Amino acid sequence: MDRAAVGEAIKKLSSLKCEGMYLSDFLLTWEKTDDELAAVFAVADILREMRRGNVSTRIFDSGLAVSIFRDHSTRTRFSFASAGNLLGLALQDLDEGKSQIAHGETVRETATMISFMAEAIGIRDDMYIGKGNAYMREVSRAVQEGYAAGILEQRPTLVNLQCDIDHPTQSMADAMHLIRHFGGAERLRGKKLVMSWAYSPSYGKPLSVPQGVIGLMTRFGMEVVLAHPPGYDLMRETLEVAKRHAAQGGGSFAVTHDMREAFQGADIVYPKSWASYAAMEKRTDLYGKGDNAGIKELEKELLAQNATHKDWECTETLMKETQDGRALYMHCLPADISGVSCKEGEVAASVFDRYRDLLYREASYKPYVIAAMVFLSKVKQTADRLTRLLAAARPRVP
Amino acid sequence: MDRAAVGEAIKKLSSLKCEGMYLSDFLLTWEKTDDELAAVFAVADILREMRRGNVSTRIFDSGLAVSIFRDHSTRTRFSFASAGNLLGLALQDLDEGKSQIAHGETVRETATMISFMAEAIGIRDDMYIGKGNAYMREVSRAVQEGYAAGILEQRPTLVNLQCDIDHPTQSMADAMHLIRHFGGAERLRGKKLVMSWAYSPSYGKPLSVPQGVIGLMTRFGMEVVLAHPPGYDLMRETLEVAKRHAAQGGGSFAVTHDMREAFQGADIVYPKSWASYAAMEKRTDLYGKGDNAGIKELEKELLAQNATHKDWECTETLMKETQDGRALYMHCLPADISGVSCKEGEVAASVFDRYRDLLYREASYKPYVIAAMVFLSKVKQTADRLTRLLAAARPRVP
Amino acid sequence: MDRAAVGEAIKKLSSLKCEGMYLSDFLLTWEKTDDELAAVFAVADILREMRRGNVSTRIFDSGLAVSIFRDHSTRTRFSFASAGNLLGLALQDLDEGKSQIAHGETVRETATMISFMAEAIGIRDDMYIGKGNAYMREVSRAVQEGYAAGILEQRPTLVNLQCDIDHPTQSMADAMHLIRHFGGAERLRGKKLVMSWAYSPSYGKPLSVPQGVIGLMTRFGMEVVLAHPPGYDLMRETLEVAKRHAAQGGGSFAVTHDMREAFQGADIVYPKSWASYAAMEKRTDLYGKGDNAGIKELEKELLAQNATHKDWECTETLMKETQDGRALYMHCLPADISGVSCKEGEVAASVFDRYRDLLYREASYKPYVIAAMVFLSKVKQTADRLTRLLAAARPRVP
Repeated sequence: MDRAAVGEAIKKLSSLKCEGMYLSDFLLTWEKTDDELAAVFAVADILREMRRGNVSTRIFDSGLAVSIFRDHSTRTRFSFASAGNLLGLALQDLDEGKSQIAHGETVRETATMISFMAEAIGIRDDMYIGKGNAYMREVSRAVQEGYAAGILEQRPTLVNLQCDIDHPTQSMADAMHLIRHFGGAERLRGKKLVMSWAYSPSYGKPLSVPQGVIGLMTRFGMEVVLAHPPGYDLMRETLEVAKRHAAQGGGSFAVTHDMREAFQGADIVYPKSWASYAAMEKRTDLYGKGDNAGIKELEKELLAQNATHKDWECTETLMKETQDGRALYMHCLPADISGVSCKEGEVAASVFDRYRDLLYREASYKPYVIAAMVFLSKVKQTADRLTRLLAAARPRVP
Repeated sequence: MDRAAVGEAIKKLSSLKCEGMYLSDFLLTWEKTDDELAAVFAVADILREMRRGNVSTRIFDSGLAVSIFRDHSTRTRFSFASAGNLLGLALQDLDEGKSQIAHGETVRETATMISFMAEAIGIRDDMYIGKGNAYMREVSRAVQEGYAAGILEQRPTLVNLQCDIDHPTQSMADAMHLIRHFGGAERLRGKKLVMSWAYSPSYGKPLSVPQGVIGLMTRFGMEVVLAHPPGYDLMRETLEVAKRHAAQGGGSFAVTHDMREAFQGADIVYPKSWASYAAMEKRTDLYGKGDNAGIKELEKELLAQNATHKDWECTETLMKETQDGRALYMHCLPADISGVSCKEGEVAASVFDRYRDLLYREASYKPYVIAAMVFLSKVKQTADRLTRLLAAARPRVP
Repeated sequence: MDRAAVGEAIKKLSSLKCEGMYLSDFLLTWEKTDDELAAVFAVADILREMRRGNVSTRIFDSGLAVSIFRDHSTRTRFSFASAGNLLGLALQDLDEGKSQIAHGETVRETATMISFMAEAIGIRDDMYIGKGNAYMREVSRAVQEGYAAGILEQRPTLVNLQCDIDHPTQSMADAMHLIRHFGGAERLRGKKLVMSWAYSPSYGKPLSVPQGVIGLMTRFGMEVVLAHPPGYDLMRETLEVAKRHAAQGGGSFAVTHDMREAFQGADIVYPKSWASYAAMEKRTDLYGKGDNAGIKELEKELLAQNATHKDWECTETLMKETQDGRALYMHCLPADISGVSCKEGEVAASVFDRYRDLLYREASYKPYVIAAMVFLSKVKQTADRLTRLLAAARPRVP
C-alpha cells in the first residue's frame, strides 16, 4: 500500500460534497450527484488499498448486513457478504421460504422485524417491471419510520442489489473498471461505449443492467450507443435519464437497431441479452393474474422471437469493427458463451477468453463498491474516519 | 446512554440471586425464580442501553450460536442471530434438510457434533404436543454429558425459541414491553390482562404463546383471564402453573368462554389464534402413525370448527369494552388482520393499525431478552462483567 | 492450559519442515510430507490448548471461509464453520441451488467470483468417481491463476472436505484420536488396524473414508489390514499408496475377504460400509449419460448385493477376537447401528454404546485439524505467530 497515495485520496475525498449520503439509501445512480458517485469510487479505492496494505477497515464491532434475494445470485450474494464482512457486519439472509412471510406479513412489518440490529439491507428483486424498486422503497420507508419512532435504534441503509430499473452496484463496478482501465474518469470523455443486446437461448433476463449502464455511463462525457433489435426497448424513463445525462455531460446518447454499425469505432462494447420491456410488462401482468399457463406461453413466444436474432452475437468479425479492433469487452457475468455454456449465445468463445481476466477484474470491484456505499451512509465524517483507520493501522491479518 | 442509570441498573442486578443461571438452559419461565427473571429483564435493559450508548457488549472473541428451526420463523430467527452477534457469536444454522440427520443420527449424537465450538443453541420445535420441549431436554442432556466427559470444552446454553409448552423469549419480551409501557413491574399489579383466542383461517397454530403468557403474567400480580371457545383448551399443566402463580403472586387467574365478558375493563388484551389441545394431540398421534391422509382430514375438520367462531375477532366494538376503551393490544406477530392478510381474522385492521408502533416495540425486546439469557448462562460474575464492559467503553461503531 | 507445554509444542513445531504448506491446498494426505502432517497435528493441538486456556487464536480481522457442499453433511459442515470462526473467518456457503451456476457459469469463473475476500474454501464433492478431486483441482487452479493475475488479492486455501479419493480432515482427525489415545505417534508402531467393510442398508457410500484411512495409517508403522467382501474393492491408486507407505514406514498392508480373520488380534477396528469401486464407476457413467432409470436399477442391484453380506457386522462376538477383546472401535459417524438407526447395520448397539464417548472424542478433533490446515497455509512464520498469540493472551471469552 502506498500510504501517501491513500492519504492523498482521502484528502481528495474530503473535497467532495457527500454529506447527503449519510443515513440514505443507494437505489438508483441517477438519484446521486456527481460528487456522491465520485465519493463512492474514492472510498471503494481507499478501502481496497487499505485491505491490500493489511490495514483493517472494520468499523463495526457488531451489527448485521441483511440480504434479501428474490432471484438467483452468486457474485452479488458473495459481494454483499464480503462488503459487510470487510466492515465488520455479519451476513444474515432473509430466506423467504424459511420465514413466516407466506403467513401474511406485510412488507412494513417484515422490514422492521429484520432490522433491530441491521446496519445495512441489500435487496435483489428484479423479476417484474414496476415491482422491485417499489418494494425497496417500501422497505426504506418502513425502516425510516421505525427509526423515527424510536423502534429501531439505528437506520439500516438500503442497497439496491438489482431491481427492475437499475443495477447500481453492477454499473458502479463497471464504471470503476473503466476508470482504472483508461487511467481516470476524465479519460472516459469522448470514448464510444456500446451497450448492445445480444442473443441468448434463455428467457426473461432483467433490463436493469443495460438501463443502469446507459443511465450511468452517459455522465462521463462518453458517446453512448444503445443497440438492440426492434422490440427490445428499455423502460422509457431510463432512456430519458440517459439523454439528459448526455446533454448535461457533453457526451451523446443514441439508439440503433444495427449491432454492426454500433460497434464501428467503439472503444468499449457491452453485449448482453435482455427481455423486451413489453414482454416483461406482459409477464408482470400475467404474474399478477396468477396465469402460469399464460407465462409459459409467453416464454415460448419470446424464445421464438429471440431466436430470430441469433446474429446478434459478439463475434471476432464484429470485434474487428471496433477501435483498432480491440475495444474493451465488458459483461456483468455470467455470459452465454457460444459453444461453451450454450450452443449459440451472446459472445464467441475466443472473444470471451481473450477478455477473461479483465472481466474478472471488472467483477472484483463490486464488493468494494458495496462497502463504499454502506460506509458513506453509515459514517458521517467519512474522510476523518478513513484517516483514523489508516493511522490506527490495525492489521487485517496480524 | 445515561451512564449513571446503567451503573444503577447493574448495582440493582448485583442484588438479585441469579447464580443458578450460570451454565443452565432457559426452557420454561416457570423453572426460573422471580430473581432470575428480574435478572433477565435487567441484563436485557442494560445491554440495550449500552448498545444505544455505542458501548460494545461483545463478550466472545469466537464461538458459535447454533440455531435449529423445525418450524418457520422470521423474527425469532433474526432475534437469535442478532442476540448472538451482539455478544460476538457467529450464527450457524443446523438445516436438517442439508444434514445427515435423515441418515439416522440420534439426537444425542447430532447435539454433540454441532457443539464443539457452540456457546449457545437456540431451538424452535413447536409442531407436536409432547415433542418439542422433550427434544430440547434431550439435546440439553447430551451436551451436559459431553461437557462432563470432557468431549465438549464448553457447555452450550440452550434457549427455547418456542416449543409445544412455552415460548419464553416471546413471553419475556412481552413482559418487558408491559414493564416499560406501564412504568415498572410493580405497576402491573392488579392490571387485568386477557389472553384470548381469536379466529384465524389458518390451522394448527401452536399453544405455546398463550401458555407462555398465562404462565408468566400471573407472576406479576395481574388479574389474568384466559378466554377461548369450548374445545380450545390449553395443556392442563400450564393452567396449573398459572393458577399457582396467581395464588402466590396475589393476582388471579380465570378461564371464560366469552370474549366480550373477558374484555370488560381489561387493561391489556392479547387476542391470538391457536389450535385446541385435543386437536394438537390427535395430530401428533396421526403424525406418529405417518397417517398423512388422516392429518389432512383433521385439518379440514379443524378449519370447519374454527369457522364457527369467526365472531372471536378483536374489533373496535370489543376494544370499547376495555378500560377507558384503550387497553393495550398485544400480539406476537404476524397477526391475521381482517381485510389485510386474510378476509376474516384475529383483529380488525383499524385496531391493529392504531397499535402498530407499540407492537413493533414489543417485538424489539426479543433480541435483548435472548442475549440476556445467554449472557446470564455464560458469565458467572454478571454484574462485574457488565461493569467492566461499561468501564472499557469500547465503541460498537467506532 | 499448561503454558509451558504449549511453549514446548511450539518449539517442537518450529523444528518441522512445513514451509511448503504456505499458500498451498490440502487435498490428499499423501501429497504431504511426514513433517507437514506432524505440523498439522501440532498446530491442531496447540490451537485446542490455547482455546481451552481461553487464549484467542483469531488471526483474521476479516475474511471469508467459503464452503461448497455437494453432498449432505452435518459434522464436517459444523467443523469447517467452527474452524473458520476460531481463526476469525466468517462462513459463507455457496448454495449451488441459490446461485447462477445452473445458468452456465464455468468452474473457473465461479471459483473466482466467490474468492475476492475468501481466505479458505472447503469443498465436499464425493458422489462420483473421478469427479470430486478433479473439481477441487480445477477450483485450485482458478484461484491460483486469479491470484497470479492480481485479480484476487489473497490466495484462498483449498481444504478437501471429502472427495471421491480421500477424506483428509476425517483421516487426520482419526489419526489425532489414535495418537492421543495411545499416547503418541510412536506408540502406533506395530499396532494392528483393521479397516473393514460392514453391511449397511443404504447404498452408495463414498470410498474416500476407507481410502483415506489406509493411505494415512500405513505411515505410522502400523499393521494395516483392509477387509471387505469380494467386489468391494477400493480405487487401485489408493491401494498403491497404502502399500508404498507400509513399505516406507516399516509397517504392513494386507487385504483380506474375511472379517473375522482380520479382527483377530486387532488393536483398532474401523468397520464401515462403502460402495464397490466398480459400482461407483458404473453410477458415474450412468450419471454422465443422465440415465436416471439406470441409476435406480443399479441401486436395486447394489442393495441386493449388499444384502448378501449382512454378516459383515461388528458384533460383540467379533470384538472378542480382537486384542484382549478390547480393540479401539472407530467410525467417522453417523454409523448404521443395528436395531437403532436400522434393522441390521454396521455395528451392534452394545458395541457402539461402549465406545460412544470415544467416538465423539474422535470427531472432536476435526475442527482443530481444519483450523490447523488453514493456519499452516495462511501463516508463513507459523511457530512465531503462535508464540505471539500465546504472549498476547487475548482472552477468547473475556
